Amino acid sequence: MSNDMHWSRWGDLSHGDDLPESAIGLLELAFGDLRPVRSARLTDVQPRPVLLDDAVLDELRSLLGADNVSVDHEVRIRHTRGKSTPDLLAMRAGDVAAAPDAVLSPGTHEEVVALIEIAGHHRIAVVPYGGGTSVVGGLTPDGVGENGVVAIDLSRLDALVEVDVESSTATVEAGVLGPRAEELLAEHGLTLGHFPQSFEYASIGGFAATRSSGQSSSGYGRFDSMVVGLKVATARGTWDLGTAPAGAAGPDLRQLVLGSEGAFGVITQVRVAVRRAPEVKAYETWRFPSFAQGRDALRNLVQDDLNPTVLRLSDEAETTLNLADPDSVGAAGGGGVLMVCGYEGTAGRVHRMRDEVSARLVSLDGVSQGDEAGRRWAAGRFGAPYLRDALMDRGVIVETLETATFWSDIEALYDAVKVALEETLRGTGATPIVLCHISHVYRTGASLYFTVAFDGNEQPAEQWQRAKAAASEAIRRCGATITHHHAVGRDHLHWYAQEIGPIGVRALRAVKAAMDPDGVLNPGVLIP
Amino acid sequence: MSNDMHWSRWGDLSHGDDLPESAIGLLELAFGDLRPVRSARLTDVQPRPVLLDDAVLDELRSLLGADNVSVDHEVRIRHTRGKSTPDLLAMRAGDVAAAPDAVLSPGTHEEVVALIEIAGHHRIAVVPYGGGTSVVGGLTPDGVGENGVVAIDLSRLDALVEVDVESSTATVEAGVLGPRAEELLAEHGLTLGHFPQSFEYASIGGFAATRSSGQSSSGYGRFDSMVVGLKVATARGTWDLGTAPAGAAGPDLRQLVLGSEGAFGVITQVRVAVRRAPEVKAYETWRFPSFAQGRDALRNLVQDDLNPTVLRLSDEAETTLNLADPDSVGAAGGGGVLMVCGYEGTAGRVHRMRDEVSARLVSLDGVSQGDEAGRRWAAGRFGAPYLRDALMDRGVIVETLETATFWSDIEALYDAVKVALEETLRGTGATPIVLCHISHVYRTGASLYFTVAFDGNEQPAEQWQRAKAAASEAIRRCGATITHHHAVGRDHLHWYAQEIGPIGVRALRAVKAAMDPDGVLNPGVLIP
Repeated sequence: MSNDMHWSRWGDLSHGDDLPESAIGLLELAFGDLRPVRSARLTDVQPRPVLLDDAVLDELRSLLGADNVSVDHEVRIRHTRGKSTPDLLAMRAGDVAAAPDAVLSPGTHEEVVALIEIAGHHRIAVVPYGGGTSVVGGLTPDGVGENGVVAIDLSRLDALVEVDVESSTATVEAGVLGPRAEELLAEHGLTLGHFPQSFEYASIGGFAATRSSGQSSSGYGRFDSMVVGLKVATARGTWDLGTAPAGAAGPDLRQLVLGSEGAFGVITQVRVAVRRAPEVKAYETWRFPSFAQGRDALRNLVQDDLNPTVLRLSDEAETTLNLADPDSVGAAGGGGVLMVCGYEGTAGRVHRMRDEVSARLVSLDGVSQGDEAGRRWAAGRFGAPYLRDALMDRGVIVETLETATFWSDIEALYDAVKVALEETLRGTGATPIVLCHISHVYRTGASLYFTVAFDGNEQPAEQWQRAKAAASEAIRRCGATITHHHAVGRDHLHWYAQEIGPIGVRALRAVKAAMDPDGVLNPGVLIP
Repeated sequence: MSNDMHWSRWGDLSHGDDLPESAIGLLELAFGDLRPVRSARLTDVQPRPVLLDDAVLDELRSLLGADNVSVDHEVRIRHTRGKSTPDLLAMRAGDVAAAPDAVLSPGTHEEVVALIEIAGHHRIAVVPYGGGTSVVGGLTPDGVGENGVVAIDLSRLDALVEVDVESSTATVEAGVLGPRAEELLAEHGLTLGHFPQSFEYASIGGFAATRSSGQSSSGYGRFDSMVVGLKVATARGTWDLGTAPAGAAGPDLRQLVLGSEGAFGVITQVRVAVRRAPEVKAYETWRFPSFAQGRDALRNLVQDDLNPTVLRLSDEAETTLNLADPDSVGAAGGGGVLMVCGYEGTAGRVHRMRDEVSARLVSLDGVSQGDEAGRRWAAGRFGAPYLRDALMDRGVIVETLETATFWSDIEALYDAVKVALEETLRGTGATPIVLCHISHVYRTGASLYFTVAFDGNEQPAEQWQRAKAAASEAIRRCGATITHHHAVGRDHLHWYAQEIGPIGVRALRAVKAAMDPDGVLNPGVLIP
């Protein structure tokens, strides 16, 4: 049942996540002496007593089989919260108050439909649990303290249901994690091409429910753009969506389910566009004199239909920090900012695209740094969350936030968010380091992804909450989106309501009321 | 007020729409002797008395100015119905029962908001009227006979509001027609690249409200994929959507408004992605041995990211008919089917794409037919609706319908729809000609566009209704969409409800009730 993720850290313990000596030196230069921070042990923490009564548990056991209904402490704790820094801080402090009362593991779509019905009948909150990687409070529903909460662990929905080679689509069950999806598709010579930083633990259903976007989005597109069909278990029964790649048959209702975070139903199956697995992968880094010039280069490429598979540009601070760490990208010195350009496809296509992009980047004052650093970036692309744990072990708090807007507003957005983060954290007595990169580009705009590190005081969660609120206000003032690929959850709800306005809120609430009359589907999430 | 479209035909009378002698000969070969069919004159028809009382008209006049509230017979008739063949048959028969009671011409977004409020207060149905080109009953609301119907003519919302060169977007008011939009953008060296067959008369707001797709969709994309922002006048006030190109902030609510056909509100402004106007346009035709082989070639191109600006493939019947008409595409003989490949962009890009596509098509048994026929196709691309009028003047009924599905289902869909149309029309005593082409392709599937011509009996609208119903049943049996780019309107409602299922219907009704509590927004359209 479920994956091998650590209950209060990212990944499993087999992953070496201690810091190299050189990094510790650097950190102490920035933050002064570091002190080891203790973290609660699994054996020390205790979830609250199970709220579900025996009759309900018996009903669930007779539906799913006794093995697939767990009230075991460890299982419950392992399905508590997601993996945001506030989540980890709470878990490290031994706070497992958000633990579900039971963890249910349905094996079929029909079982999910049936258990939503049971949950509705008994007014028990239902939290869909894919990989458990939410960083926005998506796994922390309201409703605790009333009739209880169950997590629906989707890991038994693990099949590649169909490969339609002619249509270039695959139908995959929601519980399949990123690496397993790639493994199953590789047997058919195919790839999904979706590699968010959470890839190793995140699930297909979660990608859809949160509108995930991966590091190769320039080439393969966002996850929502890959989805052509969905099967959803709702309180009203089964909802099948997707009769054609695109159409004019009213609003695109798939787009109502994508990003719905379990509030309207549980996605159990996704039909996605797939691609032939690439023959060749080549990653190269480029140096630009400034973040502004690098941004202009990205915009120039994408507005001229030059779309490498990966495009990623670090600002000056992120470039400097990465250069300072010999295990990271761009070991060569020289100032400015680094861009990663990755190319995947047939040898011929990669060759041609790379030639064309390279010529363009040279004309825009880019200087190639060769393949070595690019290869290192690709090898370490899923590594940052492990590093976060190692830093938190020493009292350094790391968290990320992200947004997106149109190109003409990008610079103002960058400045506003950076200033908001820095000033607010300084106001808490911390010495913040704020890094930023662009990793998703569109013809009309781009994302900004901020990484923040600071020396936590006794209340690091409050420090971060203040910084996050200030950054979110700045995002709203700039008219940008509160989230480009992390979703709304509970953490973004306040600013999300402002973003979609009272009419948007009204529309969502109407759909929620129609789809979830008992209000049991991930309550408190998404709907302002 | 409004455009110069004829009240019961397509286009204006200055357009020569008579048939060449050669075509008449061909038609008589197919259908036997043709007889001229009389059509009602504008001076002979009379709309019903205005249902609105004077107090309401005064309220509207004081909001919009007396000049912008018309109850003139001709103005009302010119805003009656759209341009489907059933619409034209009704109008030719002098049936103007669907005429609105008044035609209102607001000059600002705020006026649209205010008049929706007035309409709600008095329970008057409101029909947004852009170019009047609906072919699915989108301009024929229920509600006539109660408190009346007003058409909101959007033609005074005619501004290019903003060009954001850096973000490559333009903000355009809803009433701007296709050619005017291109003219306004051309002043900035830009193009929208949206050229549906209705281009000459259809409006920006209508493109958005119906999810239009143009003949250059392979290169420029569907209209819904171009939209990054919307301003909507609703019964709840102003709704602004679009904070970033894409994001994870919940369901994409823009996609709830796109395709909503005025049922949730009136789109008054659209922010769209634009492109640099192409330096070069080159259109070429290719011959393939069969429709099946041509289809495989299209699929091969698009699944390998080879996307000419225009891709269009006629089946054997359409190819033959086009070849038989010396004014149409593909004058050279030789059997098989014709594909149009169009390339637009910089000279270098067109050259490279054309080389790569041509090599691929040759490898797939395509034989280039050169540029001449392609140029002729491009020149005549908006001509078919004029031809329809000329044929109807002789008792030959022409109508189209379209659908889309995934590649692996395309052949079965083609066969099923063709057989349904032919058998049903033969059952009415007609001799049908059924033509088909593919004009919109995706990695995962494609559209099918059928053109049907038959010798009408005394009840041609009923003949067509039976054929359309049979084709629609066939589409549903195949699991395809009831419309790829014509929208739902009233004509598709029955099959649309089946397509989205009871849960989809429930979701739409919930949004409708929330957004339009008085039920006055284009009632009867879209919502099953």
